Amino acid sequence: MKNLVGAAMFAQSGGPTSVINASAAGVFIEALKQDKITAVYGAAHGIKGVLEEDFYDISKEDEKELLLLKNTPSSALGSVRYKLKDAKKDDTDYKRIVEVFKKYNIRYFFYNGGNDSMDTCNKISKYIKKSGWDCNVIGVPKTIDNDLFGTDHCPGFASAAKYIATTVMEVCLDAKVYDTPMICVIEAMGRNAGWLTASSVLAGYKGLGPDLVYLPEVAFDINKFVADVKGVLAKNNNKCIVVVSEGIKDKDGKLVCETVGAVARDSFGHAQLGGVAATLANILKEETGYKTRAVELSLMQRCAAHLASKTDVEETFRAGREAVKAAVRGTTDKMVVYKRVEDKNGNYKCKYSLVNLKLAANTEKTVPLEWITNDGTYISDEFVTYALPLIQGEAKAPVEDGLPRFARLKKVQAGKK
Amino acid sequence: MKNLVGAAMFAQSGGPTSVINASAAGVFIEALKQDKITAVYGAAHGIKGVLEEDFYDISKEDEKELLLLKNTPSSALGSVRYKLKDAKKDDTDYKRIVEVFKKYNIRYFFYNGGNDSMDTCNKISKYIKKSGWDCNVIGVPKTIDNDLFGTDHCPGFASAAKYIATTVMEVCLDAKVYDTPMICVIEAMGRNAGWLTASSVLAGYKGLGPDLVYLPEVAFDINKFVADVKGVLAKNNNKCIVVVSEGIKDKDGKLVCETVGAVARDSFGHAQLGGVAATLANILKEETGYKTRAVELSLMQRCAAHLASKTDVEETFRAGREAVKAAVRGTTDKMVVYKRVEDKNGNYKCKYSLVNLKLAANTEKTVPLEWITNDGTYISDEFVTYALPLIQGEAKAPVEDGLPRFARLKKVQAGKK
Repeated sequence: MKNLVGAAMFAQSGGPTSVINASAAGVFIEALKQDKITAVYGAAHGIKGVLEEDFYDISKEDEKELLLLKNTPSSALGSVRYKLKDAKKDDTDYKRIVEVFKKYNIRYFFYNGGNDSMDTCNKISKYIKKSGWDCNVIGVPKTIDNDLFGTDHCPGFASAAKYIATTVMEVCLDAKVYDTPMICVIEAMGRNAGWLTASSVLAGYKGLGPDLVYLPEVAFDINKFVADVKGVLAKNNNKCIVVVSEGIKDKDGKLVCETVGAVARDSFGHAQLGGVAATLANILKEETGYKTRAVELSLMQRCAAHLASKTDVEETFRAGREAVKAAVRGTTDKMVVYKRVEDKNGNYKCKYSLVNLKLAANTEKTVPLEWITNDGTYISDEFVTYALPLIQGEAKAPVEDGLPRFARLKKVQAGKK
Repeated sequence: MKNLVGAAMFAQSGGPTSVINASAAGVFIEALKQDKITAVYGAAHGIKGVLEEDFYDISKEDEKELLLLKNTPSSALGSVRYKLKDAKKDDTDYKRIVEVFKKYNIRYFFYNGGNDSMDTCNKISKYIKKSGWDCNVIGVPKTIDNDLFGTDHCPGFASAAKYIATTVMEVCLDAKVYDTPMICVIEAMGRNAGWLTASSVLAGYKGLGPDLVYLPEVAFDINKFVADVKGVLAKNNNKCIVVVSEGIKDKDGKLVCETVGAVARDSFGHAQLGGVAATLANILKEETGYKTRAVELSLMQRCAAHLASKTDVEETFRAGREAVKAAVRGTTDKMVVYKRVEDKNGNYKCKYSLVNLKLAANTEKTVPLEWITNDGTYISDEFVTYALPLIQGEAKAPVEDGLPRFARLKKVQAGKK
């Protein structure tokens, strides 16, 4: 537990969310207040900004704009998908990071991201400790996928869930306006964890939800799927609304979206998913002859800040502040997590805690199998109980000319880039 | 100009909008107040509900729920795409309509829809007049496409425009977070009129808009398109955001989305469009080797009531009321239209007027060619001046459990179905 005085560096990594900049706002506003923190930097494009000495002096920003970050979607500093090598094999990048940290007297490092970013953060944390340079490293969680270990839920998930539930309600109304047969297949993100797809049952809780829901947690069988849809059509006036995860896989673990064509891969080797709804809609059209429609929620589910959950925004902001407070107290090598507790009236309340970075880095939290019901086609009320408190409250950027007024940062260069 | 006493029938037709039920609310609430109107009916699924005597007694609904219709997307009574035959060739349906109108003493008929629906409304109006049955017929305009003749703008357009502009702003932020090359092709609706696609430049007005915009009003050339995109990439750090209309056509008038495969057609013979963004994104990927993404705004652009324009909602509600008032005054064979005027401070104000149904039925209003700039790749500020007043104000359904509380109608059957 080192009590350090020096500069703080914050960086954003991985896929953005609607509320990712609320963490940035929390880190920046708290760090600017702390006496032990002598300078606050924001790295451009994650760890690459550190490696390239490309970062901004946050003290030069207006506080009003920093507060607007709470309602501004998508990594304001820029993000990155850059995989650090195993330090035992090639420690070039790590040496460079320590060099930069020494050069700018970085004593606090905050890395904001999901599983892969926490892996990066964990590796840096371990290397820096070994190097002898005193620097407290704290991971700030972020992912719409909600799959980080050790936390009740993840910053960004609830806003995506609120977007998905609201949109599914609206699409359900739209898709059913004609008295002719209609099949609609809606695709949500989620590589291995079905939390986002499951969120569509919140729309069902309000009476306007999907008939069938398919998560990556359950092996997908195309023949069973077609039979499931035909079963719904038969009893439901020839209408069926399905929500599927982009990450559904067959019993051999092969992605359904990959079995129909080539798929690009990112630098982590992850397939660039998408298009499974269109594929399934085509199959259903051939099988039934009915009008089918594929709706991909695409980037909107992770950037629709205009429909963010206020609970999510405020918790995410707080998570950033808690990261700074923990580091200043002398904590290192941890990630901030949420614990679900009850207030004195028995209502939902969020408390903030810490877990070891190593645990957060390499463990994926999926939807409990016992919450998946109806032979793998729906989600139990336990999910509704879990998710409903998280989507409460409306948060959006101030409106200017009828459109959102997002934060405008000056981005005053502070590195030697 | 007949002064009639009897029942009123209202029906919804064609593709829904976010605010379509605001017209229904306007018609219902105004009609229930009028002494000359002895009963208020809402037809299920447009003209089919009339033909099949399938309609509801609106006096049985709670006023609170009728008011909630203002913020409930997608034809609450159900819609239809049913093309009436030419009465000279086959007047079976028309005879049946007159028969039903006589049976229920329908003296006021309000038909809510776009071009095709106004064609239906016009045909019914003319036939009824010839039949000798006294009934005032008024068209209530509706279309996100904004292509109805004789009106400054159409109910539903502004909310779709607000959704598109907001979403493009958010997607622009999201698509640019990485420091790697990125092409994003966003697809908006609009068969022959590019008003919705043009709306994306409102995002540009706020500094977060597309680089290139392609409307169906201008012949689309794939080679020029690829060159346009490469030009933007070269000067723009290898990033390019494009918005295209689903209805873009080549110089021979052939739909770009049709040149790559079979397309389904609806009962009006219109192609069921979509998928052009995915096609163009694939071509750009092959041409550049860069990561490309296709985003289809799909049904969301016409049903995202959570992001509706308050100006649009209130005008649409008023249009419904004006339709009833005009009919009760003795007007028939007209459609309600908007006239743009200035208030005493020079600010935007909407006035309500009427045009002949025949004109509204068969004339499509497209984006003025002189507003299309940069060799067919952008839209002038005249469009911003035109559209900006229309998207002002926030309107959304009350929130319950963090999700919209849409209207729940009892739908008490009043026909003999």
